[in-house]
Amino acid sequence: MNGVRVAGVGLTKFGRHSERTGRDLFAEAALHAMEDAGVPRDDVEGLNYGNFMGALAEHQGHQAPLMAEAAGLTCPATRYEEACASAGVAAREAVKSIRSGEADVILAGGMERMTNLSTAATTEALAIAADELFEVRQGMTFPGAYALMARAYFETFGGDREDLAHVAVKNHANAVSNEYAQYQREITVEEAMESVPVAEPLHLFDACPITDGASALVFVSEAYAETHDIDAPVAVVGTGQGSDNLALHDREHLAQTPAATRAAEMAYDEAGIGPDDVEVAEVHDCFTIAEVLALESLGLYEPGEAIGAARRGETTRDGRLPVNLSGGLKAKGHPVGATGGSQIVELTRLLRGDHPNSDVVPDARVGVTHNAGGTVASAVVHVLEVAE
Amino acid sequence: MNGVRVAGVGLTKFGRHSERTGRDLFAEAALHAMEDAGVPRDDVEGLNYGNFMGALAEHQGHQAPLMAEAAGLTCPATRYEEACASAGVAAREAVKSIRSGEADVILAGGMERMTNLSTAATTEALAIAADELFEVRQGMTFPGAYALMARAYFETFGGDREDLAHVAVKNHANAVSNEYAQYQREITVEEAMESVPVAEPLHLFDACPITDGASALVFVSEAYAETHDIDAPVAVVGTGQGSDNLALHDREHLAQTPAATRAAEMAYDEAGIGPDDVEVAEVHDCFTIAEVLALESLGLYEPGEAIGAARRGETTRDGRLPVNLSGGLKAKGHPVGATGGSQIVELTRLLRGDHPNSDVVPDARVGVTHNAGGTVASAVVHVLEVAE
Repeated sequence: MNGVRVAGVGLTKFGRHSERTGRDLFAEAALHAMEDAGVPRDDVEGLNYGNFMGALAEHQGHQAPLMAEAAGLTCPATRYEEACASAGVAAREAVKSIRSGEADVILAGGMERMTNLSTAATTEALAIAADELFEVRQGMTFPGAYALMARAYFETFGGDREDLAHVAVKNHANAVSNEYAQYQREITVEEAMESVPVAEPLHLFDACPITDGASALVFVSEAYAETHDIDAPVAVVGTGQGSDNLALHDREHLAQTPAATRAAEMAYDEAGIGPDDVEVAEVHDCFTIAEVLALESLGLYEPGEAIGAARRGETTRDGRLPVNLSGGLKAKGHPVGATGGSQIVELTRLLRGDHPNSDVVPDARVGVTHNAGGTVASAVVHVLEVAE
Repeated sequence: MNGVRVAGVGLTKFGRHSERTGRDLFAEAALHAMEDAGVPRDDVEGLNYGNFMGALAEHQGHQAPLMAEAAGLTCPATRYEEACASAGVAAREAVKSIRSGEADVILAGGMERMTNLSTAATTEALAIAADELFEVRQGMTFPGAYALMARAYFETFGGDREDLAHVAVKNHANAVSNEYAQYQREITVEEAMESVPVAEPLHLFDACPITDGASALVFVSEAYAETHDIDAPVAVVGTGQGSDNLALHDREHLAQTPAATRAAEMAYDEAGIGPDDVEVAEVHDCFTIAEVLALESLGLYEPGEAIGAARRGETTRDGRLPVNLSGGLKAKGHPVGATGGSQIVELTRLLRGDHPNSDVVPDARVGVTHNAGGTVASAVVHVLEVAE
């Protein structure tokens, strides 16, 4: 099995890009990633591209060859769609292709444009990640779905809105120094608590924003990095994926996300590590409660224990296990089809030492990313490690 | 590199299924494929699922976990979208996964529901496979795009509408005995010539219909087939994929499809064969001209030579190289996200000897499938061979 390295990373600023096209955004991230890697475009053997709602937001399907063209690539190009885990799956398949020896260089990433629709239309478009027949038709949208999960969590394990507010406060604090973040500003627990209710117990500051943006990664084999003298200190040592029933009513628990547990077990197993080895994590906090569920699925906390993690200062910048130093989806933003790639970009920067928050984890060598689709009917987990 | 076999195949009847859901259609095909294979569902390690326009036709994204659930699977499930080549790409990635030793059993296929929209809405939905910014906004839809390609072909190489009519007549004749075909009836050259113009030079009988349907394949490693005593005589010995610029105006030629040429070269190379070895082919005839372009890209004819192939009786049932014995997209139907899988199903049945048209090619041992996205901005080619 060939070793896989992250050779280069690229992001656009996350936020509102009403004047730009999707191809323009993705090209920016892709060109940055290839430049960062020092890999010429002719060496790229495949493009794995994630996008979720382009058919609705831009009336553009068949985006993979379009994005290849925009990035100046002539290789086979494939689109992956797994709701908010689209780029996570695209990256995972890139890792698998290189590991198997079938390719040496793959560009993976994703893009989403969301702000060109009205907020109502975006909420409706996002809802297609849920079960249309059994959830969406009954009026369910994602704030409501995650509110159900939060209520179930509170009832099963305890916890309250203030615990969740601390997650938001933590992630906003982390985003301040991140030049790519949509919201580079701190918030207070009071602001979070007093923000308008969206779907009780979730309020506005429990939810991630609507975001345009793109992410890109150049993955290479260790052999390629060596022969081409590419500086790529971060290795992808584990990748896992899990699925679950799409509709919440078909699950055994509303306060647990077994798809992510399965993905994490697979990734840890490949990496030959356990949760105790993880020093830093980027997890899918589309809502504050989602970060709590992620930490438990990743085995970083026992069920019922992660709710107080931010409040107790364990997952904050000065805690023992900093989570979402990028600002997370909550403050950095969540262009859904790009997010899974963006998490790997941020973790790579953190581990390489060139992230604005790298000084928070100067000695970290092992980190994980956790990317979820819908109400975690899909989940992708990656383990990254600084190679020796 | 592990050998890959087609262990089981499944299809729904292609046509109008207004009373059924997408999950219901896919489950039917998937359950048939698993039953045909004799592979228990718990052995399936991944679902690779193709769908193109579910966001528009069913307001359902994130279909992969939904389809896994419908088929009774709990493995990781991933959606591939590559316009009309969605299932082709899904199948190709399944083959790669097994070949690399990463999995022994993958279920691949696709589903599309199209007839629940009006014809105008379907045409508009299909158009998202073209370049929204530079083609669709100017009013281009696919009949128009392929009409441009047909005109360019006629001007460059010669040929006329009657040549194309013979392609339609041939494919309809092949569909008569295919129990899964949407149109099990013959047409005449006169009928085709006199059908209403859609976009000159293409008339109604040059175009494939609008179709609901699903396809599924169980791919297994040779080792798995052996240890589990699975009868799987057909091997996938080559797979290739190519991309091109999405918009027609960005191409060098309108009358050639180099993405498919690249895909074919890759697949032949892997299979260790050349075009002369091909005995039977299932190609992407979304319009009659597309079959002509496919045969040339596959190297089965020189550029400019395939236009008369059906008329000369070379690609007909009694010709030297029968093409689209299933009826093709033209007469069997074209549920876009399922088509690439359906072609492999049909070729497998032909080579195994259990297709209603197997008696047309009783000694055939090598066949190819050719699946295209949009105006062939994407293409996937597979080479299948009866293993000894």
